[in-house]
Amino acid sequence: MTNTAITNDATQAPTRTVAAYAAPAANSPLRRTTVERRAVGEHDIVIDVRFSGICHSDIHQVGEDWGTGIFPMVPGHEIAGVVSETGPGVTKWKVGDRVGVGCFVDSCRECDNCVSGLQQYCTGGGMTPTYNGIGRDGRPTYGGYSAELVVDEGYALRIPDNLPLDAAAPLLCAGITLYSPLAHWGAGPGKKVAIVGLGGLGHMGVKIAHALGADVTVLSQSLRKREDGLKLGADDYRATSDPATFTELAGRFDLIVNTVSADLDLSAYLGLLRVDGTMVQVGAPEKPVTVNAHALLTGRRSLAGSMIGGLPETQEMLDFCGEHGIAAEIELIGADRINEAYERVLAGDVRYRFVIDAATI
Amino acid sequence: MTNTAITNDATQAPTRTVAAYAAPAANSPLRRTTVERRAVGEHDIVIDVRFSGICHSDIHQVGEDWGTGIFPMVPGHEIAGVVSETGPGVTKWKVGDRVGVGCFVDSCRECDNCVSGLQQYCTGGGMTPTYNGIGRDGRPTYGGYSAELVVDEGYALRIPDNLPLDAAAPLLCAGITLYSPLAHWGAGPGKKVAIVGLGGLGHMGVKIAHALGADVTVLSQSLRKREDGLKLGADDYRATSDPATFTELAGRFDLIVNTVSADLDLSAYLGLLRVDGTMVQVGAPEKPVTVNAHALLTGRRSLAGSMIGGLPETQEMLDFCGEHGIAAEIELIGADRINEAYERVLAGDVRYRFVIDAATI
Repeated sequence: MTNTAITNDATQAPTRTVAAYAAPAANSPLRRTTVERRAVGEHDIVIDVRFSGICHSDIHQVGEDWGTGIFPMVPGHEIAGVVSETGPGVTKWKVGDRVGVGCFVDSCRECDNCVSGLQQYCTGGGMTPTYNGIGRDGRPTYGGYSAELVVDEGYALRIPDNLPLDAAAPLLCAGITLYSPLAHWGAGPGKKVAIVGLGGLGHMGVKIAHALGADVTVLSQSLRKREDGLKLGADDYRATSDPATFTELAGRFDLIVNTVSADLDLSAYLGLLRVDGTMVQVGAPEKPVTVNAHALLTGRRSLAGSMIGGLPETQEMLDFCGEHGIAAEIELIGADRINEAYERVLAGDVRYRFVIDAATI
Repeated sequence: MTNTAITNDATQAPTRTVAAYAAPAANSPLRRTTVERRAVGEHDIVIDVRFSGICHSDIHQVGEDWGTGIFPMVPGHEIAGVVSETGPGVTKWKVGDRVGVGCFVDSCRECDNCVSGLQQYCTGGGMTPTYNGIGRDGRPTYGGYSAELVVDEGYALRIPDNLPLDAAAPLLCAGITLYSPLAHWGAGPGKKVAIVGLGGLGHMGVKIAHALGADVTVLSQSLRKREDGLKLGADDYRATSDPATFTELAGRFDLIVNTVSADLDLSAYLGLLRVDGTMVQVGAPEKPVTVNAHALLTGRRSLAGSMIGGLPETQEMLDFCGEHGIAAEIELIGADRINEAYERVLAGDVRYRFVIDAATI
């Protein structure tokens, strides 16, 4: 994160004062405040934020686990709301449209990846994160824990009419984070897929992989959430604390999506893949990961990584979820409970996503 | 390796005494001896071995670096020769045919992988290695450092007429080890491929990737072999000891094939891949490999492994090499120089493969 893009012009341009919950400094509790957003530009829309999911990465960024943050920080990149205003050049949206915004609000729009719809891998300076970044106007970006969002019309996505906005909000990060690797690596009928970890990410993985037609196994530390997992669509549910899991399921899976950021014995999981199978990391472990090359060589296996999804694929995911009636399992909270929710996320005490009711901000 | 398959029947069956070079015990120098091979069965052929390549893995196995070995051990799995005798049921070969044998001489023939021609990944007990294994007759297998080989007709491959047998021998391991990942991950026109390391494996990778039409870069510790690399078909040659290599080539390659078994900073190499790029390990590091998951996530990159190739693909590779006039760069030696050659391989002092003239065994 750098502030070099800030210019006097930008900081002196007219702004819009918006209620928000922000961390005033690294590791501080969040509290109610206001932030200045840019005025509505030619191609901007204003989103009346209705709901905002709490992602574990919000906690990492407030805690500066991933590097220096920009404060005050308004987290939130699982945003669902309704268009309340449109700039004069906006063609894609009208007031009243139900829209979502995910992990990024801009990108260079010119590099090969942006042009091919993989904005999350923008090489022209990188995507502009929805918060804790600097927009092309030179201002810090602020996320969804706020009453309103001003965003370029191209970076908002349509939320299908049949999905409730509160449970749809987490699709914008947790949903696409799982949908993208499942779709990219061909989860579908005849394919055996394992989802490692049944948390905010994992529970979306089970629902989506099941809806894609794959045979789904949850690999979780214990059988504590087994009943939930089967109800969400899993065909099988195994405890990774039981060594028998790794012998009984050896060579079984075409695809394993690992949602767990903690240190796992990845080589053991690679042994669960059949020939040409892939294990995809979607969580970002803080420490480097270690694998036995033998586990890769002896079955032409791959260890891959995947990060959210691009705009076209995120819309595809939302449409898919609409068709299949899929949304997150949520616990709706008032904004005054954000700090308590952070504690509970860290303790793994949520089934399966906290969503803030933005009317309480 | 297990001896449980040995039965009295097998060990008392008639055999064929064959001159060979063997290590009598782990880490012993190799010396001239004889070994007993099985008599020619219904579907067996006898190969008059003409040439046998020296692979680094021969040295590892004699040294028991990869586990307990079976001694006396006759290494050699890069074998080129001529059919000298055929069993009564043989239909594929006739006396005088030019044939090769690679890293395995049998497999279960029934598992999904065997049926689909991926015998190297046989899950029905694993492939039977050409040496340092136990055949289905219960006898230890002995490799190509010998005057004759008895092998099932299905596990021999045709060597194209235009390739000299001596330089063709290393295709059976080094050739297929590189051809398989290059073909599987689509090296060809418009693709940028890097080969890490210019040794016995790497030099075959450069020749094959170039013949497949890819743009080829060698990534080597120094520029010492640069002239060779360009002559072999590389379009570019960079020193990995120069940090600028990793900034200048960032995001450049579709595919990197790593032939180096030594500990490398794989995360740095992953940074050289574009979105959706793959780095394939073909060497087998003794220590686990460590990568930064961030390097995988931020470009949907993969770290994969690949091990030799199946029978159909090995024949495809030999035919491809015949069409393109590709064989190994070799130093031909008499069998009395095997131990000296081992020392020189360990010192990296060979351009690029030692091949034993089997007439001297």
